[in-house]
Amino acid sequence: MSSSGEDTLRFAEVSPPDGSARAATLCLAGADNTVASPAGPLGLGVLTTAAAWLAGCQGQCPPRLPSRTRVVVFAADHGIAARGVSAHATGTTRKMVTALTSGSGPLATAADAVGAGVRVVDIGLTDGDGEHALGHGSEPIDVADALTEADTLAAVRAGITVADAEIDSGTDLLIAGSLGVGGTTAAAAVIAALTGTEPVAVVGRGSGVDDHGWAAKTAAIRDALRRAKPHLADPLALLRTAGGADIAALTGFLAHAAARRTPIVLGGLPVCAAAMLAEELAPGTREWLLAASTSTEPAHDLALEHLNRAPLLDLRLGGDADAGVVATVSLLTTTVGALAD
Amino acid sequence: MSSSGEDTLRFAEVSPPDGSARAATLCLAGADNTVASPAGPLGLGVLTTAAAWLAGCQGQCPPRLPSRTRVVVFAADHGIAARGVSAHATGTTRKMVTALTSGSGPLATAADAVGAGVRVVDIGLTDGDGEHALGHGSEPIDVADALTEADTLAAVRAGITVADAEIDSGTDLLIAGSLGVGGTTAAAAVIAALTGTEPVAVVGRGSGVDDHGWAAKTAAIRDALRRAKPHLADPLALLRTAGGADIAALTGFLAHAAARRTPIVLGGLPVCAAAMLAEELAPGTREWLLAASTSTEPAHDLALEHLNRAPLLDLRLGGDADAGVVATVSLLTTTVGALAD
Repeated sequence: MSSSGEDTLRFAEVSPPDGSARAATLCLAGADNTVASPAGPLGLGVLTTAAAWLAGCQGQCPPRLPSRTRVVVFAADHGIAARGVSAHATGTTRKMVTALTSGSGPLATAADAVGAGVRVVDIGLTDGDGEHALGHGSEPIDVADALTEADTLAAVRAGITVADAEIDSGTDLLIAGSLGVGGTTAAAAVIAALTGTEPVAVVGRGSGVDDHGWAAKTAAIRDALRRAKPHLADPLALLRTAGGADIAALTGFLAHAAARRTPIVLGGLPVCAAAMLAEELAPGTREWLLAASTSTEPAHDLALEHLNRAPLLDLRLGGDADAGVVATVSLLTTTVGALAD
Repeated sequence: MSSSGEDTLRFAEVSPPDGSARAATLCLAGADNTVASPAGPLGLGVLTTAAAWLAGCQGQCPPRLPSRTRVVVFAADHGIAARGVSAHATGTTRKMVTALTSGSGPLATAADAVGAGVRVVDIGLTDGDGEHALGHGSEPIDVADALTEADTLAAVRAGITVADAEIDSGTDLLIAGSLGVGGTTAAAAVIAALTGTEPVAVVGRGSGVDDHGWAAKTAAIRDALRRAKPHLADPLALLRTAGGADIAALTGFLAHAAARRTPIVLGGLPVCAAAMLAEELAPGTREWLLAASTSTEPAHDLALEHLNRAPLLDLRLGGDADAGVVATVSLLTTTVGALAD
């Protein structure tokens, strides 16, 4: 499936969710608000579609509450951050990881509120030394490949391994996230490449850059796109040239979790970029993904549209908004609880 | 303030929420997604506006998690149900109340999931005998006044008393709901009257009526509107002619909770009708109300627009959808938790 990794990387086949469990849940809940069951329709509106998605993944109606929900965050530094594309100083990624692993910050708090454990995977931090760490960040994608071919494959494989570890531990609902200064720039470049979109139409405020940062980001994406163009039909080569270790790991993670029939809620932009690549490499992956919300990042909604995943909520979350995504899981589980009754 | 109750009913003055706590929360969260705090904007999108509303009500930034959240449901039978305006059989209200008080059903489950206790107030059940019960349902509003003047005042006062009881017990977040077959018909009539809207433009599927029920409902609203027209400027007379005991009690409940500076999340259509009346009787009440979601009931969105309360989410909940509203509170509290960090 890829010139760069054909002999060495195989993705397990992805089977579809259970359509009848999904349909039965929609019917049970009176999703169209006209079906009158003895107790009347539940009137849960679009929440019903999220519960029905979960029912399809679980293969049962009504769906049950997940027994183990986990937020898995892949952390990596991006060389492109040196171009001033982010409101965060380079080197901030490490501090964010430390805060998250110590349980502080919005994402940790939101995860705690929805009863989800958090796993932070150091995949490409500068001077990283985690189990799956490449030990360095990516190169600046405007002038160089983000990763070597070996590192790309290693990162994708790490994502697969982490998915296995989580699912083997009983996780039955995953929330995929990312952490890394410069991450939305690489993600926007990947999404622009895969959707044939001009840089100016994908670039967003990411971490909250000012107009100067926005211009730098647009230029970086333009240059990265030029380098990525020869590889549009080769997802692994696209990861190597315009991606980064977090997006590569997420690609393997999403594709493999889907192959193992595990539902996954999509986090911010790097996760959406990875979802597009995972769908290319392992068709059908998208059926196992729930898009929680719209975003202020133009590339986010583009990616979801391309994946045919309508966002559940129109919260217009920011580029860093994994915390907001995690918060929406409370809505999903409350709905499932109400339906189960 | 009302020809029918001027000497006997006074509403406490409603003071506005704390605008600076609200503004500070918006700023803290980087609500516009461009303010870059040291940690960057939280990117919580529209969730920020809900947290900022709570901060304003609490008078502190960041907002704190509510210490006691309560769902208060006012139950009443509506004589108009005899016209076949509902998918539920008449007499179903009592069964719904029994189910809810025994902790079963979607609303009870959703309340449990968000850690909220539930109080069901029998205000107008047929053969009712609760502390605040009038002891009977309302008359059919297409041909008669819903309530006597004395019952209207008693119901409004009961709502005030229940608000006091809840707030005196330490409740700092209220979710207002209603239960009663025929309730959305009365509510739609009240909202049509207050907004000058034609019956056909307010009538919705409510509990899930078919086309026959829809036609009956439209006719009922048309006839009720004709009877209510002389009382457009008199909220208590409007309650008496076109409302019902649940809407009357909710009117007192909302106005008094607002006067006592307690934030309230709005449930379904009868609650929205009551919110409009409460705003008329006690101006400023609306600032203390959070509209959780859009609805499939046209009158719902009309009422919210009239109150200038933009719904937080576009869930298109059904007319019976208090359970869906309760579920959204999980999103509010998770956001507040993330902001507090």
